[in-house]
Amino acid sequence: MNISPLDHRYSCSERELFESLARYFSEDAAVRSAVYAEAALVRAHLAERGLETAALRKLLMELHTKITPEAVYDEEERTHHFIRALVNVVQRALPPEAAQFVHLGATSADILDSALAWRIKAAMREAVLPLLRALLKKICAITKSEAYTPQVGRTHGQHAVPITLGFAFAGFAARLGKSVQEIEARSKALCGKLSGAVGAYNALTLIYSDCEGFERRFLSEMELEPSEYSTQIVEPEYLLRLLLEINIAFGIIANLADDLRHLQRSEIGEVREGFSTSQVGSSTMPQKRNPWNSEHIKSLWKTFMPRVTTFFLDQISEHQRDLTGSASQRFTGEYITGFAMAAQRMFNVLEGLDFDRGRLAANLDSGSIPGGVLAEPAYIMLAESGIKDAHEIIRKITLNAESLGISFGEALQQDESSFKAIEFELKKRRIIGENEDAGSFFSKPELYRGLAAEKALSIAKKYMQCEA
Amino acid sequence: MNISPLDHRYSCSERELFESLARYFSEDAAVRSAVYAEAALVRAHLAERGLETAALRKLLMELHTKITPEAVYDEEERTHHFIRALVNVVQRALPPEAAQFVHLGATSADILDSALAWRIKAAMREAVLPLLRALLKKICAITKSEAYTPQVGRTHGQHAVPITLGFAFAGFAARLGKSVQEIEARSKALCGKLSGAVGAYNALTLIYSDCEGFERRFLSEMELEPSEYSTQIVEPEYLLRLLLEINIAFGIIANLADDLRHLQRSEIGEVREGFSTSQVGSSTMPQKRNPWNSEHIKSLWKTFMPRVTTFFLDQISEHQRDLTGSASQRFTGEYITGFAMAAQRMFNVLEGLDFDRGRLAANLDSGSIPGGVLAEPAYIMLAESGIKDAHEIIRKITLNAESLGISFGEALQQDESSFKAIEFELKKRRIIGENEDAGSFFSKPELYRGLAAEKALSIAKKYMQCEA
Amino acid sequence: MNISPLDHRYSCSERELFESLARYFSEDAAVRSAVYAEAALVRAHLAERGLETAALRKLLMELHTKITPEAVYDEEERTHHFIRALVNVVQRALPPEAAQFVHLGATSADILDSALAWRIKAAMREAVLPLLRALLKKICAITKSEAYTPQVGRTHGQHAVPITLGFAFAGFAARLGKSVQEIEARSKALCGKLSGAVGAYNALTLIYSDCEGFERRFLSEMELEPSEYSTQIVEPEYLLRLLLEINIAFGIIANLADDLRHLQRSEIGEVREGFSTSQVGSSTMPQKRNPWNSEHIKSLWKTFMPRVTTFFLDQISEHQRDLTGSASQRFTGEYITGFAMAAQRMFNVLEGLDFDRGRLAANLDSGSIPGGVLAEPAYIMLAESGIKDAHEIIRKITLNAESLGISFGEALQQDESSFKAIEFELKKRRIIGENEDAGSFFSKPELYRGLAAEKALSIAKKYMQCEA
Amino acid sequence: MNISPLDHRYSCSERELFESLARYFSEDAAVRSAVYAEAALVRAHLAERGLETAALRKLLMELHTKITPEAVYDEEERTHHFIRALVNVVQRALPPEAAQFVHLGATSADILDSALAWRIKAAMREAVLPLLRALLKKICAITKSEAYTPQVGRTHGQHAVPITLGFAFAGFAARLGKSVQEIEARSKALCGKLSGAVGAYNALTLIYSDCEGFERRFLSEMELEPSEYSTQIVEPEYLLRLLLEINIAFGIIANLADDLRHLQRSEIGEVREGFSTSQVGSSTMPQKRNPWNSEHIKSLWKTFMPRVTTFFLDQISEHQRDLTGSASQRFTGEYITGFAMAAQRMFNVLEGLDFDRGRLAANLDSGSIPGGVLAEPAYIMLAESGIKDAHEIIRKITLNAESLGISFGEALQQDESSFKAIEFELKKRRIIGENEDAGSFFSKPELYRGLAAEKALSIAKKYMQCEA
Repeated sequence: MNISPLDHRYSCSERELFESLARYFSEDAAVRSAVYAEAALVRAHLAERGLETAALRKLLMELHTKITPEAVYDEEERTHHFIRALVNVVQRALPPEAAQFVHLGATSADILDSALAWRIKAAMREAVLPLLRALLKKICAITKSEAYTPQVGRTHGQHAVPITLGFAFAGFAARLGKSVQEIEARSKALCGKLSGAVGAYNALTLIYSDCEGFERRFLSEMELEPSEYSTQIVEPEYLLRLLLEINIAFGIIANLADDLRHLQRSEIGEVREGFSTSQVGSSTMPQKRNPWNSEHIKSLWKTFMPRVTTFFLDQISEHQRDLTGSASQRFTGEYITGFAMAAQRMFNVLEGLDFDRGRLAANLDSGSIPGGVLAEPAYIMLAESGIKDAHEIIRKITLNAESLGISFGEALQQDESSFKAIEFELKKRRIIGENEDAGSFFSKPELYRGLAAEKALSIAKKYMQCEA
Repeated sequence: MNISPLDHRYSCSERELFESLARYFSEDAAVRSAVYAEAALVRAHLAERGLETAALRKLLMELHTKITPEAVYDEEERTHHFIRALVNVVQRALPPEAAQFVHLGATSADILDSALAWRIKAAMREAVLPLLRALLKKICAITKSEAYTPQVGRTHGQHAVPITLGFAFAGFAARLGKSVQEIEARSKALCGKLSGAVGAYNALTLIYSDCEGFERRFLSEMELEPSEYSTQIVEPEYLLRLLLEINIAFGIIANLADDLRHLQRSEIGEVREGFSTSQVGSSTMPQKRNPWNSEHIKSLWKTFMPRVTTFFLDQISEHQRDLTGSASQRFTGEYITGFAMAAQRMFNVLEGLDFDRGRLAANLDSGSIPGGVLAEPAYIMLAESGIKDAHEIIRKITLNAESLGISFGEALQQDESSFKAIEFELKKRRIIGENEDAGSFFSKPELYRGLAAEKALSIAKKYMQCEA
Repeated sequence: MNISPLDHRYSCSERELFESLARYFSEDAAVRSAVYAEAALVRAHLAERGLETAALRKLLMELHTKITPEAVYDEEERTHHFIRALVNVVQRALPPEAAQFVHLGATSADILDSALAWRIKAAMREAVLPLLRALLKKICAITKSEAYTPQVGRTHGQHAVPITLGFAFAGFAARLGKSVQEIEARSKALCGKLSGAVGAYNALTLIYSDCEGFERRFLSEMELEPSEYSTQIVEPEYLLRLLLEINIAFGIIANLADDLRHLQRSEIGEVREGFSTSQVGSSTMPQKRNPWNSEHIKSLWKTFMPRVTTFFLDQISEHQRDLTGSASQRFTGEYITGFAMAAQRMFNVLEGLDFDRGRLAANLDSGSIPGGVLAEPAYIMLAESGIKDAHEIIRKITLNAESLGISFGEALQQDESSFKAIEFELKKRRIIGENEDAGSFFSKPELYRGLAAEKALSIAKKYMQCEA
Repeated sequence: MNISPLDHRYSCSERELFESLARYFSEDAAVRSAVYAEAALVRAHLAERGLETAALRKLLMELHTKITPEAVYDEEERTHHFIRALVNVVQRALPPEAAQFVHLGATSADILDSALAWRIKAAMREAVLPLLRALLKKICAITKSEAYTPQVGRTHGQHAVPITLGFAFAGFAARLGKSVQEIEARSKALCGKLSGAVGAYNALTLIYSDCEGFERRFLSEMELEPSEYSTQIVEPEYLLRLLLEINIAFGIIANLADDLRHLQRSEIGEVREGFSTSQVGSSTMPQKRNPWNSEHIKSLWKTFMPRVTTFFLDQISEHQRDLTGSASQRFTGEYITGFAMAAQRMFNVLEGLDFDRGRLAANLDSGSIPGGVLAEPAYIMLAESGIKDAHEIIRKITLNAESLGISFGEALQQDESSFKAIEFELKKRRIIGENEDAGSFFSKPELYRGLAAEKALSIAKKYMQCEA
């Protein structure tokens, strides 16, 4: 009876991923992480005063696995205040020598903000980044294995000049590769705080003389740094920059999904998502095989990308904080989950992706003007031969080819002087042999691929090495 | 272990509302509504051919309560196609004379789009609109009961001229009142379809001669009209306009929440959310009473408002439809739930809202220049007396009052000629009596309230009558 | 040296349209419309008191053509308040018997909000709606003329079942047609106000006994209705609903642009934007003809669509109004201009659009399985013949056709019993003649077009009649 | 007659800033930067071949100051292609030995993308970053000078515990300070390209053997690095990350504006924007002084912040690039201009900002419970004394104070045992002297300010040093 598709539909279709994320983003995880933070604070107090014992430390390290969210909720019924309820429950679970330090010197947000940073950091490290690295490796593997597979390069959806399939994937390796590095750095930079109700350490100055030192001690128990400045809450930009970088990676994955969608068009057919033989594409059109996984990824992006507006709205908090980020911030886990679902699905798509080499080759040499993808080298060679309006001459030859329904090479050959000039230049550069005809060049567009293969290989090599 | 706050935190805090919406927006509801649509199609086929019997009709009317989503999911494991799986399950549940008509002439989207329209319409009618009408009545009740309660009108956060508390609420009655009417109309206008795979009734023309007539018959079984035109899917704008109007109502409610937040500032204190005597406002500051419900409503708006971008992105579907709306459209129910949660919370806030009449009165007569809210009538009376630079004269008197630390009325009295001129005009208009001093006017700002009370009463009366 | 592309690049490329909009949306227009509103207020005062003369009326009707924005700006240097400056300038331009009524009883927002409603209404009526109607007619004309031109219907970018080109355009006629009607209604519903500083008519009650009557008199001079309720400003939702509906129309036009982009892909080539013979598609690839106008329209949509978030943000104004809408509202004219630029460009594209009937026909019968678009009728006829797993049988035949590299019709014929059953059904329904072979049906996919042509014609007829 | 408010209204109100930005973001600048890039390419070709002369270099370094945009536009009328037109014009302006190398090996996007990176980088370095550094210094100066000025800390708009005014500003120094550093780094990281039509250096391999080396040579003439990978265009994320960081800085400035707005509320009055004595606040209410500059800044943020959605939409470009970013990318300069306008206005606001020390002090000791901001230390001292339900005891004392209308200190004194316990703890910690009464502590809330002053000073010191 859940309402969010993440909690019903997608929690089933990607169960393993869902569970690995629910460990950090469910309400259960939220409560337990707050218990963990309260216990870390008690440990810090004990240590500061030299009162820590092995038994107390053990008890405190495991407290979040013992206290149940239900117990906290029952108490909240009475106080109408979540952290006050939590404090009461935690105190009851501890011996007096530890209980007295529960929440001492802290305000609710010290606990909640630190706990949030702690669990997002853990979710990124344990679940999201490993997934992204696996996806990146998969892209690199295709980049490498298809480095030499000819494909037509397309701009404006029109045939431009040749590339290779691996080169097309290399772009996603380079873009996602950099984004993964940024995501990792931004995750590690998440901060906590223990500066009290308005960030000025008011309460803590009643207790300790080196308040900022005690804050660092508490946060080191949670493997966090303190926010450089805080009000009641941590500076919002640490988390904001992470979420924005995640949205960047989301866009890169959506771009790849879009490219795959279009490469699966009936008229193009260069790639195809894995489709089992018993799978149905349409309830009424038995012939259909739809790129529904790529569509799904694009759709997730359409769902989650606009939520950055909420992140920017939450950047503003009046004075030392208003609480108009209360509900909106709770959806952060949902956002990261949506992103991870898209990354996982892309991994699955690439895992099962088929390439139709016949269509790849055929498309390269077709289009409205067969061989038209070699108009560029013809123009450049002609220009290099000293002809000033080379572009215009070749442009007219392409119009000619189209109206006569012949290939570009054939049309070019009809303009004898240009053809000869181009042939001369090609020979001069050893692009064709001394005894070869320029026609041989214009019949093999796949050879005019520039550095596509080399670039694919070097980028694949670079990002394949990406380790945790 | 759910990830969406709607499914854990808010499903508990507003359990009744959550359940009333889950009836339409859960995955369970999605499956059952599709069964309902398939059954409606069978009924239409039977009726078209004169084969309907009371027994079959009964069976078909109840089918969606009998077939379980689990059964459909099990079948989907095999087909990888939801509707094909559903069709198989439905067929098995029917006798041959009905089973043969299952899904006949339909494409998946005929069923899914019609089912979606049907359940959104039902959710609006049964759950959301009743809630909105209750909220509207509550606003009208306050508008009426506080129609004469003096309050300072504020522009730019600065004291302007007097109004009444009821007048301030009247604005929300007028705005929300019109929005509720629009939401109702847009809900009723949601459409279904039975035009097949690309909207051209291809399949149906093989079966019936009056395809559009049969489409109407099918949809009338679901109390829907057909989309004027459809591709594989219904024109997106019917639903889009409803969602945009919901977002408008959301903004109105958020505006009210913001106003209540600020009226609860320590320095203003004109209203206060209900706070039980055992409730804790802060874990460390015992004196705190926070406007956390108003903040929560604003926060829900920040969470959901930006999702309209997704709705607009989903407006574009390539050719006869691409499926990049697959996931994004599934979140429609979540969006409406988020909105309903905000409406419910606002109802609760208003239910328990306290007005501090002392502070209301005190604020009206304070500010940086006590009585400054009467600078406007002073200026107008002076201008009416024929003084050309009246505005400038009064402006300087306010500066004077401020630098001397006296009230506006006192400062005005110091400018004898202006004071006399104003007094004359006030008498002429019978705003003060013949024997009264203008000072009496300038000491009672609450009387300079224009039509605030009358307007509050007339608007309360109009929208109080709003019925289903 | 302008910074906005609207003011440099697009003001040149669409000069006529730009100028027709600058008449309402330039700063010059903003000032003049405010003068017009001030003059209307004076006329109302004169009329209310029976002091209007023909000479005064003439003077006041023309005042906005006489007073220059520069004069107002010079005065504003001194007052730092735009409307106070305007009032001073207007007063100087009038004889005393009229000058005394300038701005009397009004607050700045009475003038500015009414003036804004007045000029947006005029811009819509004079410039935007005529353009939209012309675009709608152009779409209807293509819908009608291409009502019978065969085209393959596509879902998920995959060949589905046949439609006609006119039918594809009909969808845009139906969607845009309804949107134009909504835009017109929302334009007409824009409101003004004369309720003073906080909406309670405080000032006006000093002057007239029937304040709301006087507000109606003033607004009728500007052909506006009063806002049902106002604070310092008109209820924001009147304008918001218009802007949202414009964004809906924007999305429809962007959808059409996207469809045209993809239909121009090298591998599809069904349509082509007009391209002059001297035009260059790429600086380096002489063969290129790019769908750059369709791309431009999509790009304008990407630029302006997200601005609805600003409109929703501006819905919230604290208490009787804050001014955080000051700058944002000034961009309303820019938004409408961006939309109009897109509509104009789409009109131009359609004006010069070429259809390649050869490619349209060829694509219909190609794809990964030639004739695969007739798998649906094969399945339905087989199902109607009483075969229970008809969908599965036909699905396997399509897989067969693909792996053997033969057409669907050929593969079907290899399954003799199914083929016969289908043939029998086709004859029964008189879809093929008594002496025809089912092969004739499966060789002419263009005939399986359902009601595509009829629907195109009826929709073209309906929306062709759309008049001002 | 311009339509964009940036080009009319704000180009006047901030003329100097506008002109400094128009140097990079006007259409004129766009054309000249493309000329500069073409000239850089010619220089690279000459250098690569050892043909560069001092005269040619000089000619090429100044070319962009000689060629007029008008000349290019005239040529574009004919070619319908901007870069082809530019190439023609540039060629005519050069002697044959240089003209032959114009655009050689380049595609339009090589020139346009590199030119765009070059001018955004320059605009940031020359105009935007200096402005941001000046703003940051101004914030630091206030942070330092008001480090000890008492102010009440507020959470949820409610009085919490004391801070200082400088501490409140310190948060903006810390947040903006880090953002300025990020903006600078992201600006410097902008990249260009010379990899040709699809990014694979196809054309360049016909000309040079070390294509990537030649690309670096070209880009070093423009002080740019090459994009790690490019299609027809540079990877979108370099620019995207800069724009997102600008939006972050925008949010920080908007947050400050919001805080200043609320601090100027009539009931709070702690700060006031500079207001000249002749300035008018309202056309009808002579007493008004509105925080209109702070409102304006917030409004600019509402206008421009949502445009990040466009930036994310432009991240997706099909295959080797589609052109649906054509128009949207042109608005990048407008976005940066809008941001700079807000930063400039904030600088102006801070320059003229007045602090009302009387109101600051008065507010700290008022609120619904005078002295209530010391409930926290009372609770902590009581807890430290060993009392278990200290929070609850103090909470009830605050309720008591409120209902009796006495100060918190007075109410506390009525609970003798608690008061004594607290006094004992305060003495133990030397917060009060041996002979002092706890009452002295509770009568001076300004002393309970934690590390507010120290933190303000250290942050002011750190970010004051921020240099170019």
